[in-house]
Amino acid sequence: MNDQLSPIISFAPETIATATLAVETNGQTLTDITREATRFIKQTGAKDGVLFMFMRHTSASLVIQENADPDVRTDLVSALDRLAPANAHWVHDVEGPDDMPAHVKTMLTGVSLHVPVIAGALAVGVWQGIYIAEHRARPHRREIVLQFIGSRQ
Amino acid sequence: MNDQLSPIISFAPETIATATLAVETNGQTLTDITREATRFIKQTGAKDGVLFMFMRHTSASLVIQENADPDVRTDLVSALDRLAPANAHWVHDVEGPDDMPAHVKTMLTGVSLHVPVIAGALAVGVWQGIYIAEHRARPHRREIVLQFIGSRQ
Amino acid sequence: MNDQLSPIISFAPETIATATLAVETNGQTLTDITREATRFIKQTGAKDGVLFMFMRHTSASLVIQENADPDVRTDLVSALDRLAPANAHWVHDVEGPDDMPAHVKTMLTGVSLHVPVIAGALAVGVWQGIYIAEHRARPHRREIVLQFIGSRQ
Repeated sequence: MNDQLSPIISFAPETIATATLAVETNGQTLTDITREATRFIKQTGAKDGVLFMFMRHTSASLVIQENADPDVRTDLVSALDRLAPANAHWVHDVEGPDDMPAHVKTMLTGVSLHVPVIAGALAVGVWQGIYIAEHRARPHRREIVLQFIGSRQ
Repeated sequence: MNDQLSPIISFAPETIATATLAVETNGQTLTDITREATRFIKQTGAKDGVLFMFMRHTSASLVIQENADPDVRTDLVSALDRLAPANAHWVHDVEGPDDMPAHVKTMLTGVSLHVPVIAGALAVGVWQGIYIAEHRARPHRREIVLQFIGSRQ
Repeated sequence: MNDQLSPIISFAPETIATATLAVETNGQTLTDITREATRFIKQTGAKDGVLFMFMRHTSASLVIQENADPDVRTDLVSALDRLAPANAHWVHDVEGPDDMPAHVKTMLTGVSLHVPVIAGALAVGVWQGIYIAEHRARPHRREIVLQFIGSRQ
């Protein structure tokens, strides 16, 4: 295999920092929270380590995806609609036709992820943004726990 | 965007604690292991940090989902059956018709996740439970590696 | 529930180590990078802790799956093709017919995961390998950030 490993850079883990981010979503769509994640990293004084993000809900999830063409987000939402359609004869339908599909979409995309932090910045790729994926039709207030483990400036 | 970041709380990371949880599943279903995760956190003397969970198998996964209505779990299982049906003409079929669908379901839902720990408790949402998703038809013994990084009581 | 928790082993977290792995993929397929992950762990002098892996792209992902029968990987790739087909009338199609399906597959399988490290070795299951899932048709150079938090030899 054609591969290459960069030099390893090591620090002492000095801090575990925790905060909660609350966001009002606009109903079924992807909302960019990269800026909010960056703000947390700055306020923490983070240098090198790992940022952990956790969605405290079962019908919204966290997704890292393309941040350039908004059509990509439109297609991602419709792809999930196809995989978990509203009219699939769900047993659980007391909370409305968008509720059970929202649970399935959350299961498929996940509620926990991490992002590397290098030299005080999120080490995401050039085209990567961090998104809340709201799977319910109506707007909701969503809480995400942000945590950083690593060294300090 | 309408959002709000809580104050940041910081601690020194004092410990990395590791244990293995073994669970007998009941065949294709979701088994709640939130209580077992809490027990690990208590025995570790964990205060603030992150709980990491890792499933050491390729046909069972870890899922965080609704813990109120059991119908939701029924629908989640049938949703995965639709996405990875037994009769899809899989090349790999030597281990039975439920084996390759189980691998696909594991790939879609994932084997690693984390949960924040705040003030000695799992910071999951009100409706969130942590589940082993067993994707094989028959019961299996599954091993999950639990790890905590953070501060101590 | 029939379950058992092993004794808990604790260490002081001494290091957060970071490096970037660059891999040339062969187009749409799964490429085993378990050996590269192990090499990073050895070079770091890692003892007990957690290995974090992060894919810096939006059309390739990280998957932990069966490492025995190569037919499983063939079936995983075709399962994803069925879930995100090229001919689904995507809005975003300027980068070719394999681009939007690649974004969907990346969303479904994820770009961040962790693996436990115990006594200096990756604590994956017997049948588990760590793979780059390349979702584009053509070969690409992919960057994965590897990080270890834990104790040292």
